[in-house]
Amino acid sequence: MTQNTFYPPARTLMGPGPSDVSPRVLQALSRPTIGHLDPQFIDLMDEIKSLLQYAFQTENTLTMPISAPGSAGMEACFVNLVEPGDKVIVCQNGVFGGRMKENVERCGGQAIMVMDDWGSPVDPGKVEEALKSHPDARVLAFVHAETSTGASSDVKTLVELAHRHDCLAIVDAVTSLAGSELRVDAWDIDAIYSGTQKCLSCVPGISPVSFNERAQQRIANRTHKVQSWFLDMNLIMAYWGKGAKRAYHHTAPVNAMYALHESLLMVQEEGLENAWQRHYDNHMKLRTGLEALGIQFVVDEKSRLPQLNSVYIPEGVDDAKARSRLLETYNLEIGAGLGDLAGKVWRIGLMGYASKAENIALCISALKEILADR
Amino acid sequence: MTQNTFYPPARTLMGPGPSDVSPRVLQALSRPTIGHLDPQFIDLMDEIKSLLQYAFQTENTLTMPISAPGSAGMEACFVNLVEPGDKVIVCQNGVFGGRMKENVERCGGQAIMVMDDWGSPVDPGKVEEALKSHPDARVLAFVHAETSTGASSDVKTLVELAHRHDCLAIVDAVTSLAGSELRVDAWDIDAIYSGTQKCLSCVPGISPVSFNERAQQRIANRTHKVQSWFLDMNLIMAYWGKGAKRAYHHTAPVNAMYALHESLLMVQEEGLENAWQRHYDNHMKLRTGLEALGIQFVVDEKSRLPQLNSVYIPEGVDDAKARSRLLETYNLEIGAGLGDLAGKVWRIGLMGYASKAENIALCISALKEILADR
Repeated sequence: MTQNTFYPPARTLMGPGPSDVSPRVLQALSRPTIGHLDPQFIDLMDEIKSLLQYAFQTENTLTMPISAPGSAGMEACFVNLVEPGDKVIVCQNGVFGGRMKENVERCGGQAIMVMDDWGSPVDPGKVEEALKSHPDARVLAFVHAETSTGASSDVKTLVELAHRHDCLAIVDAVTSLAGSELRVDAWDIDAIYSGTQKCLSCVPGISPVSFNERAQQRIANRTHKVQSWFLDMNLIMAYWGKGAKRAYHHTAPVNAMYALHESLLMVQEEGLENAWQRHYDNHMKLRTGLEALGIQFVVDEKSRLPQLNSVYIPEGVDDAKARSRLLETYNLEIGAGLGDLAGKVWRIGLMGYASKAENIALCISALKEILADR
Repeated sequence: MTQNTFYPPARTLMGPGPSDVSPRVLQALSRPTIGHLDPQFIDLMDEIKSLLQYAFQTENTLTMPISAPGSAGMEACFVNLVEPGDKVIVCQNGVFGGRMKENVERCGGQAIMVMDDWGSPVDPGKVEEALKSHPDARVLAFVHAETSTGASSDVKTLVELAHRHDCLAIVDAVTSLAGSELRVDAWDIDAIYSGTQKCLSCVPGISPVSFNERAQQRIANRTHKVQSWFLDMNLIMAYWGKGAKRAYHHTAPVNAMYALHESLLMVQEEGLENAWQRHYDNHMKLRTGLEALGIQFVVDEKSRLPQLNSVYIPEGVDDAKARSRLLETYNLEIGAGLGDLAGKVWRIGLMGYASKAENIALCISALKEILADR
């Protein structure tokens, strides 16, 4: 097979992620590679750490990017905090709670599932019941912003419940970081992971994580070695830790770090609260447009994520055909439904750089055309 | 901390990797991100797979890039092929054999170590002895091109030994792929992993892997679930496999895939044998220059890697000061020694795009100046 250079089409990415990457980030990505032990790269690592602390609203020293996608960030939290035999309460209200269960079991732990409907937030009442029924549980795990449904759960309340029952809380913030209110220290989150391809306007492939003192203590007191060498925070700390000797662990994805740095810089320049507000305002604008077309939201108003809008596919519209037409005619990508919601819903992302008036206008007028042709 | 955009210095990377990235690859990296389920991205995945098959010289259907650095590629091989209780013969003649041992043990396996001096190749005689003493061993693992020492081992002979004793062979080809002769099918290698940041002239962060039918059979017949969800080849196959439904597993690092595709295209354009020859010819040119300066190689002539030249630091030269001076005056990075070789050797890489006459000239004349100032 003889092949040629790949020139991607210029899409507008309004799906569940990756979302549109800022041109500033793409530019940063393509700067010349330097060594991962170069003194200037070491300085850059320190800057990234401090910018990540700002984005997460934390002073946790163990805050850093994992050199792999969000699912590896999830795995980093579980392999470090769950030991064989540990009981973990896992909340599932979409795809990612199910993945957490897989992680717990592959660590030799026992997952106690708290199930909620897809599209609903995690129910704190059910979680409290589970914590009471399993007083030996050691960890509570849940998703802040369910990317598969667009539902937001009440992190602060759930973490308080976990702590009241002597559990650590692991929070999935893949879709929430920089898109909606998230305060790691004020909410006392023990371990959290995110992704770069959502509200950070950065390319996919990297997973920012943060562990507080309580979580670090748990890791230090483990009786079994962490089963993953690549994700063992004891080793990663020696590479990324403050004042660490920068012990060689793996070769950092240097160019992806340039990109992450630039995207975090943009968050700092805008101001985190302003970024949250922008996501909210644009969500309201999109909502007005969608409702004018008679399109209904899946999630109750009070639990809707501004950055990921799940809506029912209007009657008489063919899911696959409509999305193909959006892609082919308008270079516009919106997301399909997953699991039980496949074929029933669309997921319209307004994340990071993609959360802007021109994208909303494009999406609404393209959908209008599709509805008119039913 | 208020920060600014990071502008990296323009280094010449002649260390153990990352090596200089081709400008074509940097350009590909910065093209607009598209969705990981976009039909055009799916086509790109097929192209990458076929280009990787060429680079590895294999027709293995299970050939793909892991979305994380080489150490995750290593872990992918071990977590999929080693089950709790399995005996694995691990050859160690540098840093990376030690990492393999860690991997075996974290999988619940038992590592039988075959030790050789740093700088020596793996001794097939010792390996045969170990295989005979442990007839219940299930896997033999070794490094083709030891990045920590610059020594090359005889893959063909070692794989033959493994098969004669009913073992699968896992081969580390992080530094060898596209830099020196490597033939996955002709040498009947069962599982192999590499990295993008060495002789592929690509950015760091991705690990190409390949598994033959025998390895796939072993994975299919496992009695324990693979302990890593992120690296479970059963799941990754459903995403990357031929005719697979492209079942969503994780969000591929889209831009890194553009870069990998472009770098593999360059290998195809040059021709693999020509690339091996270029690495050899440039090694000989560097050798002439180094020997004229009285600098001695660490590794015996017949086991020297052309792409990674380990040499003794000349007497009277301060290691750290000399390397800093090369970096500050010439923007030239060469590698330090690791482990027992720290402070005693330098590692001079001539990998991929960096394997060219102008780099050799720069390196030799910069070293000449340092020697003159002793």
